[in-house]
Amino acid sequence: MKHRNFLKPQVFALGCFFLLNLFSVEFNAQDLKIEPPNWWIGMQTNDLQLLVHAKHISTYQPELNYAGVELIKVHKADSPNYLFLDVTISEEAKAGTFTINFKRKGEKNLKFIYELKQREKSAEEYVGFNHTDAVYLITPDRFANGDPSNDVVKGLKEAKMNRDNNYARHGGDLQGIIDHLDYISGMGFTSIWSSPLLTNDMNSSSYHGYAITDFYEVDPRFGTLDLYKELSQKASEQGVGLIMDMIANHCGSEHWWMKDLPFKDWLNYQELYESGQNIPNSNHRRSINQDLYASELDSKIMHEGWFVPTMPDLNQRNPFLATYIIQNSIWWVETLGLHGIRQDTYPYPNKAFMSNWAGAIMEEYPNFNIVGEEWTTDQLLVGYWQDGAKNKDGYKSNLRSTMDFPMQMKIVQALNDDSKGWGSGLMKIYEGLANDFYYAEPKDIMIFADNHDMDRIFTQLQEDIDKTKMALGLMLILPRTPQIYYGTEILMENSEKPGDHGLIRTDFPGGWAGDEVNAFTGQNLSSEKAAFQLFLKNILNFRKNSEAILEGEMVHFAPSNGIYPLFRIHENEVVAVFLNTNESKTIIDLNVFEELDLQDTLFQDILGETDFTWKKELQLKPGFSVFSAKL
Amino acid sequence: MKHRNFLKPQVFALGCFFLLNLFSVEFNAQDLKIEPPNWWIGMQTNDLQLLVHAKHISTYQPELNYAGVELIKVHKADSPNYLFLDVTISEEAKAGTFTINFKRKGEKNLKFIYELKQREKSAEEYVGFNHTDAVYLITPDRFANGDPSNDVVKGLKEAKMNRDNNYARHGGDLQGIIDHLDYISGMGFTSIWSSPLLTNDMNSSSYHGYAITDFYEVDPRFGTLDLYKELSQKASEQGVGLIMDMIANHCGSEHWWMKDLPFKDWLNYQELYESGQNIPNSNHRRSINQDLYASELDSKIMHEGWFVPTMPDLNQRNPFLATYIIQNSIWWVETLGLHGIRQDTYPYPNKAFMSNWAGAIMEEYPNFNIVGEEWTTDQLLVGYWQDGAKNKDGYKSNLRSTMDFPMQMKIVQALNDDSKGWGSGLMKIYEGLANDFYYAEPKDIMIFADNHDMDRIFTQLQEDIDKTKMALGLMLILPRTPQIYYGTEILMENSEKPGDHGLIRTDFPGGWAGDEVNAFTGQNLSSEKAAFQLFLKNILNFRKNSEAILEGEMVHFAPSNGIYPLFRIHENEVVAVFLNTNESKTIIDLNVFEELDLQDTLFQDILGETDFTWKKELQLKPGFSVFSAKL
Repeated sequence: MKHRNFLKPQVFALGCFFLLNLFSVEFNAQDLKIEPPNWWIGMQTNDLQLLVHAKHISTYQPELNYAGVELIKVHKADSPNYLFLDVTISEEAKAGTFTINFKRKGEKNLKFIYELKQREKSAEEYVGFNHTDAVYLITPDRFANGDPSNDVVKGLKEAKMNRDNNYARHGGDLQGIIDHLDYISGMGFTSIWSSPLLTNDMNSSSYHGYAITDFYEVDPRFGTLDLYKELSQKASEQGVGLIMDMIANHCGSEHWWMKDLPFKDWLNYQELYESGQNIPNSNHRRSINQDLYASELDSKIMHEGWFVPTMPDLNQRNPFLATYIIQNSIWWVETLGLHGIRQDTYPYPNKAFMSNWAGAIMEEYPNFNIVGEEWTTDQLLVGYWQDGAKNKDGYKSNLRSTMDFPMQMKIVQALNDDSKGWGSGLMKIYEGLANDFYYAEPKDIMIFADNHDMDRIFTQLQEDIDKTKMALGLMLILPRTPQIYYGTEILMENSEKPGDHGLIRTDFPGGWAGDEVNAFTGQNLSSEKAAFQLFLKNILNFRKNSEAILEGEMVHFAPSNGIYPLFRIHENEVVAVFLNTNESKTIIDLNVFEELDLQDTLFQDILGETDFTWKKELQLKPGFSVFSAKL
Repeated sequence: MKHRNFLKPQVFALGCFFLLNLFSVEFNAQDLKIEPPNWWIGMQTNDLQLLVHAKHISTYQPELNYAGVELIKVHKADSPNYLFLDVTISEEAKAGTFTINFKRKGEKNLKFIYELKQREKSAEEYVGFNHTDAVYLITPDRFANGDPSNDVVKGLKEAKMNRDNNYARHGGDLQGIIDHLDYISGMGFTSIWSSPLLTNDMNSSSYHGYAITDFYEVDPRFGTLDLYKELSQKASEQGVGLIMDMIANHCGSEHWWMKDLPFKDWLNYQELYESGQNIPNSNHRRSINQDLYASELDSKIMHEGWFVPTMPDLNQRNPFLATYIIQNSIWWVETLGLHGIRQDTYPYPNKAFMSNWAGAIMEEYPNFNIVGEEWTTDQLLVGYWQDGAKNKDGYKSNLRSTMDFPMQMKIVQALNDDSKGWGSGLMKIYEGLANDFYYAEPKDIMIFADNHDMDRIFTQLQEDIDKTKMALGLMLILPRTPQIYYGTEILMENSEKPGDHGLIRTDFPGGWAGDEVNAFTGQNLSSEKAAFQLFLKNILNFRKNSEAILEGEMVHFAPSNGIYPLFRIHENEVVAVFLNTNESKTIIDLNVFEELDLQDTLFQDILGETDFTWKKELQLKPGFSVFSAKL
């Protein structure tokens, strides 16, 4: 396992203070870890708390001497190998490096060269993703293998890739995403959410990224920190922002601190862990966060039980850990120039902490955005977590965006329900959208057809292309922030084994040298898949510049006869959408829409099929139709 | 059809002003209708608007002369046969009668003796039903035939009863309810909600009461106004209050005003009605009330379409009609000494009006209560309508109580789902209750197992007695206001024809002379039914005095192994409830409930079965168990 953070002080030492360098190589740098490994001047977060880890470090006396930087307090932990330093950075502090000296009588000093960097842009310039974006979700191990040299990384527990095993690493990496930024932006995406890219030095299934073993290190099998920065820079040049996937709830069981935990309450159920006893899994009763009647027992097991046995549950009520997580998140936003965070398993950590965490980030970056994963199909809970919700208990989440599992479910249920009864079929979507009144801001809610934990939408919709078009097409015109999972644009499916996560996260064709099919270039791609890819590309690119879709009012009409009409209207543009669940062409009476005053308006088919002038009737093909007009 | 309101002035005249009586009999009293037919002094509602109906009344000049009463304004309507008089009653006005004179040159004066009554109790004494009550819902035509003399009432369109037809009248009446107040209060009910008792002079199906043809008249087939007052008085003596079922949305198509509507916009779609054209039914898309995106067309059809063709839809945006409905409601509260109103089809009338309507009543009677029927299983909508909801659109309903269709559905679904998976079965109830956080006041929400429009709960639960006990038993211990439909206590069912309203509203056995079975006395009642009746009676009567159930905190534990434990705890009383969906006796580990600190507490079985002392384990029978203890 490489220790970037430990090497880094030497690099600075070499660059900045040649003489000091002699001292710093005198001790084994790997014995001294300080996190966050650097900071910046001009931040809101000026009261920093540095985690220091080295053998017997608690017996050393830390000192520093740098204009504008003050060491306020030194905290010992329960383990003798940790110190926590409260450091204040005043407005007078200038960018540069300084030494933190650790002294102990009769021992050689330990030193750490700490850097305060100049910020590359102002806090306001960290503009978060929003409803004008379209987010491409990537499982990086499965997207494209851009650098075969990191397919084997010695020293890591799962050192080799093995494409024959769906739960092993397949070799996709940061370079693979960089190589295909043209494709991503060409499709019309303006944002990439990649599942976590930090080190998961786990024995198995490390490919998914959700068992982080070092919160400050890029997994060497994906690349380096510099490559992650390069991805951010190059994406930004194409108008594409990066959303980083973070996990405050847990780490991986192979995290470096697991063998030497700083405090007795760093983990939940730490006493069971340390005595080798069975640790309860979370009961996953997420409704407990809001429940007026939840028992203490259920609440404890929900929040303190481990997500799975390989993911130790962090105790965010420990104030040192809380600060550690908050600083880590800000460090990554600043380091990579992110335009968003996706927070995993949002309802699992301590709820007060999550509000503080999101609050701290939004205070640092007032225009930023965070989306939290509350996997519930209950709109009441989704709305509760969104900042601006009028919660009776006064809870303020500071979370601008939540995930639209309820609408995802309703759309799938509606399209799979072929009945056209009074309350069935498309009515589920209509009534679901009617509930938008409850949300603080519907358009900030992230809608999606599928993701890395769900069956592919093409599988969910029984491999029906018209239904899949209706699902995706609809999501892209709603007042929402849409997210599309890589491969969904080419009808990836996992119908053979529903629920199989490894299969859901199939390799993107063309991402590996020698792939017969290449969905980036279209080579050998079936006409069906290519047509669907073009369908999404057309709508995504139209959407980018459609004031009606991005900012317009929405008007929908109760579905009847299997047809659901929706309109987005903004000043001088209107977009008309029809879901037609009938199996054959259907003529509809346009007089129904009289209130919209569209008579004689020329409509263009966004999909390039049939333009028409709004008269008495319109013939709709089965499936998804979308037209636009200037008013 | 009797015209009580018309006869009344004569009675007063006879009683109070013998000489005046000569004048008042000189004209045909039936030609002059004034509504409300009387009012009271000392009301909040002192600005009265009297509807006057008589041939060519608009050509007459009204006058009145009574200390403290002033005729402020006279409004003509579109029909020449109406006047609306704005009358102000000042604090100086004393109780008594006065003449309203209608003069026209060359014509005999028309006179109406108007009475201002003394109030029988203060506004604060109209204390509404609440969660400490248990409400017995009665369909009066089907409960008990106490007065055979009104089984045939000549002059009414449906003059005769016919017990062989489930959609005809069966003869139940006010006297029948009065006769069985002992039974009702003995069962433990403290409130009666009867479906409407006002005249429904319709051609058919008049028994249900929801097509009112005179808003100021008791249906003669049920009895008289005096008998209704007697019911209220006698019920009150037994600690039972009356909830009146009102309908602001529509009247019956045979309403007296249908042949001579006061204004051109008294009804919705009045122009179609008057020209004999087809009138659209409501689309019943109730979500439109909250929907940010609803089309004007759908909204119009929802609110202005007629509920059914025999129920003309009242246009509450007409200010004269709005005032008429509000005054009518207050008149009934005051006349009968009600302790509640149940408002039918709550989301159908104009929403701003409904807020004004409830607001006016609650301003008149600050301790009163109204429950509105929003038939939706969507908790978001149920919560929206409850007063105190933090609605984003600022809507304030003034409605303290809504109906718990969502929990009714969840309980039935949970009990009918025998699976014990992570998210199935009893979890539906657990998660439904977890959503109580959203409600302004959960205990003011009315819960029920069934009602006059739904299959009997015994039918919904596949005639499973244990399940039916769990459903009803649970409802009676939740923080809710429970309602039970007549006959549900003796397992009435409609399994032969689910959905058949006539069958759902089966005659209560013992309510008719000659009934072989008498559920009031228990004569020939099957042991199964008698046992269920006793089950409910025990819980209802225990509940009355249980501070834990009425005012206690609730704690529930996530169901596991088919068992759902709930506790209500208040100071020195605890009630423990277990739903056991297993088919056989089950031993549970009581250590799970350690946080409640119940060790060695003696628990009594409310159902009189097995008392026990809280130790390590408890053996639960299948179905519903409820125990109580003093702490």
